[in-house]
Amino acid sequence: MQRTGKRLVIALGGNALGKTLPEQMAAVKLTAKAIADLVQDGHEIILSHGNGPQVGMLQTAMAEYALKYHEPAAPLSVCVAMSQGYIGYDLQNALREELIDRGIHKAVSTVLTQVRVDPDDPAFLKPTKPIGHFMTREEADEKVREKDWTVMEDAGRGYRRVVASPKPVEIMEIETVHALLNAGQIVVAAGGGGIPVVAHGHHLSGVGAVIDKDLASALMADTLGADTLIILTAVEKVAIRFGKPDQQWLGDLPWRDAQRYSQAGEFAEGSMKPKVEAAVAFVSAKEGRTALITELSKARDGVQGKTGTLIY
Amino acid sequence: MQRTGKRLVIALGGNALGKTLPEQMAAVKLTAKAIADLVQDGHEIILSHGNGPQVGMLQTAMAEYALKYHEPAAPLSVCVAMSQGYIGYDLQNALREELIDRGIHKAVSTVLTQVRVDPDDPAFLKPTKPIGHFMTREEADEKVREKDWTVMEDAGRGYRRVVASPKPVEIMEIETVHALLNAGQIVVAAGGGGIPVVAHGHHLSGVGAVIDKDLASALMADTLGADTLIILTAVEKVAIRFGKPDQQWLGDLPWRDAQRYSQAGEFAEGSMKPKVEAAVAFVSAKEGRTALITELSKARDGVQGKTGTLIY
Repeated sequence: MQRTGKRLVIALGGNALGKTLPEQMAAVKLTAKAIADLVQDGHEIILSHGNGPQVGMLQTAMAEYALKYHEPAAPLSVCVAMSQGYIGYDLQNALREELIDRGIHKAVSTVLTQVRVDPDDPAFLKPTKPIGHFMTREEADEKVREKDWTVMEDAGRGYRRVVASPKPVEIMEIETVHALLNAGQIVVAAGGGGIPVVAHGHHLSGVGAVIDKDLASALMADTLGADTLIILTAVEKVAIRFGKPDQQWLGDLPWRDAQRYSQAGEFAEGSMKPKVEAAVAFVSAKEGRTALITELSKARDGVQGKTGTLIY
Repeated sequence: MQRTGKRLVIALGGNALGKTLPEQMAAVKLTAKAIADLVQDGHEIILSHGNGPQVGMLQTAMAEYALKYHEPAAPLSVCVAMSQGYIGYDLQNALREELIDRGIHKAVSTVLTQVRVDPDDPAFLKPTKPIGHFMTREEADEKVREKDWTVMEDAGRGYRRVVASPKPVEIMEIETVHALLNAGQIVVAAGGGGIPVVAHGHHLSGVGAVIDKDLASALMADTLGADTLIILTAVEKVAIRFGKPDQQWLGDLPWRDAQRYSQAGEFAEGSMKPKVEAAVAFVSAKEGRTALITELSKARDGVQGKTGTLIY
């Protein structure tokens, strides 16, 4: 199949999906328009997405069900698998509908995706990824006492459970994604950063972690030989001295500069920092690649070089 | 790609999966061995599966979560989507591992699958499909009063919620399944009979129903041009006068005989009847097709003509 455009791996942030089901059903309509613009421009699309609120909700729901009905609780990895169904279903449908409305007939599907991590990843010793509901200090203390959770104060908005966020090593279903791209289809894959698994011989076991979706997307983009990794978030550009009087928005910048800013602590942990690091990891690995960080609604403008922060 | 064997659509019953997560993790290992035998014999495999206990569990968990945290409950269609992740994850992994152990390197993946139904299907007026926990008479009465559920006594084992089971009309992700088969891969699709949706123009809306997985598998087999539909269940053969002194196991039989027995009320509603009807629907639509109903562990023997009930 001839490639008329670029191969784009797009990582969608929380604002592309909302936090509840009604929010999700509304949000994916706008998301679908932004993505459909890129399909219409002739690009190949692989979509990934976050799942923080959803996987937290699923885990709470399954844990409480298990307690009430005396059944074993579904581990976090199974909750990630379920969140891929929960989100992928609405996301693929909204995109399918938007494309048909524009006269574009292209199959859109969601592939359940596992991502292998290293069992010796030091991240397992230091949980950093917030999931689920915000809690008061008192609620958080109770969970720490009763369920051995690790909790963290999150950006002034309250307390949340934090879990380990190991580095992605291998996208297990990459051959499937490849086959669908070769068939000219659009794929939703590695949702929520993928179901985290470790390999014991040929056996894959789920682990209690959540992989950063931007890093998983960067790995997927790398393995698929994508031209550009696009990380869509709530801001139009990356900034240094963010929130300070001399804040400065960044336009195009070489990956070494981005890396330098990141190492200097310019970007917030668990927020802009993993995005910039994912971008740098993808761009620095091979000549000719770019990574774009911008707002969902600016995706097309960003790809056309009109806005966003382009790391090259 | 050259086809060395037959194209087989295999519908797995509840015994292939178990009812809880630990049961599932054990059951899929045996299931994987039975399926791997068929892969080793050179057949192309598309797997489907039921989800009765799982979708019931998910729906209860999500409804109780919604009540407690004052969030909107996830509709049944979303619970089906989640159940495809919950089951597909373990199923594809077990098969992947079993194949690698045998030296066969073939991608196995799960495709989130929607199945379109007719909004005017009379099934919506008469719910018949049991899902979820068994309840006592008292618990069942309470759900009827409080949640407007329809409940039914199920095979002497207690009461269960029943939902509508409309006929499958279209497998929405069939192009995706096709592309993966063309790439020589193994696909888990239409899990739980598929996410039930109705079309409003280009928009697909989820509906509160569960599609029979055998009928959905028959439709998928039909659309994919499969050679044989295999329905794996808890018995080695179909019987007439089942459970009576003059019970008779059936071997090979023409589809017209199977249809005649079914119309004469020989097979249990919600159990053997939909299996036989799915088999008849698939076989009767085109010359040269067969459908096999047998026990999970007899799948290979059945395909080799040594046992099972073969409808031709």
